[in-house]
Amino acid sequence: MICALTGGTGGAKFIQGLQAVLPPQELVIVVNTGDDLRWWGLHVSPDLDSVLYALAGCLSRERGWGLEGDTFHCLERMKELGAPAWFQLGDRDLATHLARTQLLAEGRPLSQATAKIAAAAGVGARILPMSDDPLATRVHTTDGRDLAFQEFFVRERCQPPVRAVHFLGAQDSRPAPGVLDAIAGAGAVLIAPSNPITSIGPILAVPGIRRALRETSAPVVAVSPIVGTAAVSGPAGALMAAHGLPVSIAGIAEAYADFLDVLIADPADAGSAAELRRPGLQVHCVPSIMKSDDDKAALARAALQLALPDLALANAP
Amino acid sequence: MICALTGGTGGAKFIQGLQAVLPPQELVIVVNTGDDLRWWGLHVSPDLDSVLYALAGCLSRERGWGLEGDTFHCLERMKELGAPAWFQLGDRDLATHLARTQLLAEGRPLSQATAKIAAAAGVGARILPMSDDPLATRVHTTDGRDLAFQEFFVRERCQPPVRAVHFLGAQDSRPAPGVLDAIAGAGAVLIAPSNPITSIGPILAVPGIRRALRETSAPVVAVSPIVGTAAVSGPAGALMAAHGLPVSIAGIAEAYADFLDVLIADPADAGSAAELRRPGLQVHCVPSIMKSDDDKAALARAALQLALPDLALANAP
Repeated sequence: MICALTGGTGGAKFIQGLQAVLPPQELVIVVNTGDDLRWWGLHVSPDLDSVLYALAGCLSRERGWGLEGDTFHCLERMKELGAPAWFQLGDRDLATHLARTQLLAEGRPLSQATAKIAAAAGVGARILPMSDDPLATRVHTTDGRDLAFQEFFVRERCQPPVRAVHFLGAQDSRPAPGVLDAIAGAGAVLIAPSNPITSIGPILAVPGIRRALRETSAPVVAVSPIVGTAAVSGPAGALMAAHGLPVSIAGIAEAYADFLDVLIADPADAGSAAELRRPGLQVHCVPSIMKSDDDKAALARAALQLALPDLALANAP
Repeated sequence: MICALTGGTGGAKFIQGLQAVLPPQELVIVVNTGDDLRWWGLHVSPDLDSVLYALAGCLSRERGWGLEGDTFHCLERMKELGAPAWFQLGDRDLATHLARTQLLAEGRPLSQATAKIAAAAGVGARILPMSDDPLATRVHTTDGRDLAFQEFFVRERCQPPVRAVHFLGAQDSRPAPGVLDAIAGAGAVLIAPSNPITSIGPILAVPGIRRALRETSAPVVAVSPIVGTAAVSGPAGALMAAHGLPVSIAGIAEAYADFLDVLIADPADAGSAAELRRPGLQVHCVPSIMKSDDDKAALARAALQLALPDLALANAP
C-alpha cells in the first residue's frame, strides 16, 4: 500500500499519475483540509474535491479546479441576489458540497462523508482528510490582517505580503481515522509536489502525523514543487520565504528535514541537487512539470521506483 | 392596502395579476408555508418562491414553478451521487434556497429571510410567510401512510386516496409579524384561487388568522379554484372531498363560510352561483381561467372592483 500526502492542484495531478500506475485499492491519499471553508452555508473542501475529481477523471483541465465542463448558473444568480461571489462553485460541483454538508449535518465526520461521496463518484482509492477536526490555515499579512486561506488565495489573489501562516485549531486536532495507520503501514510514503507551507504544512500540524512520518519504516519521498527559485504554480515561494525557508529545493528539504529520505527535483536543479545530497538524503532529478497525463504517470512511476525499486507497476496510461 | 392570501401555482398567477393593476407598495401577500421542506439540506419554500418568481417576472411559464429557462445540472449530478431527485431544484433556483437556508442558519426568522430575498430580487410588494414557525401539512392516505405534502404532491403525483389532511405544529404556530395587521388594516382581503385545503387551509390553521379574517372590517373576496366539479389544476377536488366538502363553488363557500363576503366563480358556474347567493354572501361570475397575462390582470381587476368599487386601478398590462 502506498500512502500519499497532498493538497492543492499540483498535488491532485500527481495523485492522478499515481492512480494511473497503481491499483486503486493500494492507494491511500491523505489530504489537506486547512483550506476548507463555509461558503453559501455549505462545507467546501477544495483539496479533497480536487483529489476526488482528479481520480474520478472529471477535474477541469482548463481551470485546474472544479468539474470539467461545469456551468455557473447558480453562481450568476447568487450574484444577482447580492451574495459574495469571489469563490466560484459550479452547478455540478455544488452537488458535492450539498452532499457533504448534509452528511456532516447528520453528524457524520468528514472522513465518512468523504468516503461516501468518493464511493458514489466511483473512486476506488481511499481518500482521507488529514483530520475530522477543524484546522484552519490563516494567513497573517504584513499589513496586520488575518485572512482565511481562500481569502488570501482566491479573493486577494495572493497579493498581500505575508508575515506568517498559522494553523488555527491545530493543537486540538487529531488525525482522521486511518491516517496514522496508513503512514505506519505503507510500503512508501509519497509527498506530492504541493505547497510545503499551506498544503502539506497543515497536515504536518496535526499532532501525531509528523511523528508518524519520522517513525514509519517506509521510505518517505517528496517531489519538489519548486523548480529553480520559484514554485511551478501558486504562492509556495512567497509563503516559504515568509517562513524563513530558501525558495529552492533546499527549502523543501529543510521543510521536511526530520523525515525525508528521497527528494525528487527537476533536472533544471541538477546543480543544487548535487549540493543537497548527504547521508540519509537521496536527491534524484526527474522531469517534474506535469502537462499531460503521460507526464503525471511518468513522474508518479519515477517516484514509486525510487521509493520501491522492486515494485511492479502498471503501464498505464 | 390590499392583503392577499395565496398558495400554489394558481395563486401565484393571481398575485401576478394583482401586481399588474396595483402599485407594489399597496400589496401585502400572505403565503402558505405548510409545503416547506428540507431538501438536500436546504430550506425550500415552494409557495413563497412561486410568488417571488411570479412577481419578479421570472416564474417558468412552461413548468409553472421554478425559474424561466433554468438548467438542472446540479440535479443531474445529485442523481449520479445517489441523492433523491424526485423534487427538482434548478441551478438558478438553488440560489434562493441557499440564500434562505443561510439566513435561517444565522438565526433570522423566515419572514426576514423572505423580505431580504424579495428585496434582492427586486420585488416591491411585501411577501409574508403565514408564520415563522414550522407548520407542516401532512396528508394521511387511506392505506395508512402519513406523507409530507410534497411527498404526496410531487413524489406520489397525488395518486394515493386521501383520508385527511393535518397541519402538524399548527397549535404552536403564530402568525408571522405583519400578518394580522395586514388583514385588519387592509382595504380588502383577497383569497387567491388556491386549494382551500392545502394552500389556504394551512394559513387558516395558524391560530389568530381565521379570527382576524372574521373580524376585519375589510371585505373578504375569494376566487374559486373550482370550476364545475373539478379544480382548475391540482388535487383540490380530492382533498376537498376527503374533508367532506362538495367539490364545487358551494364547497369553497363552505370552507370560508365564517368570513367570506364575496365569492367569484367562473361563468360556467352561473347556475350554482345563483343558488349560493344569500344575505351576507355575494357571488359574482367572472372568467377565472388564467392563461395569459391579460387574463391574470382582468381577474385581479374584477376581484378588486367587486371588493372596492371606488378603487382606482392601473391599466396594465
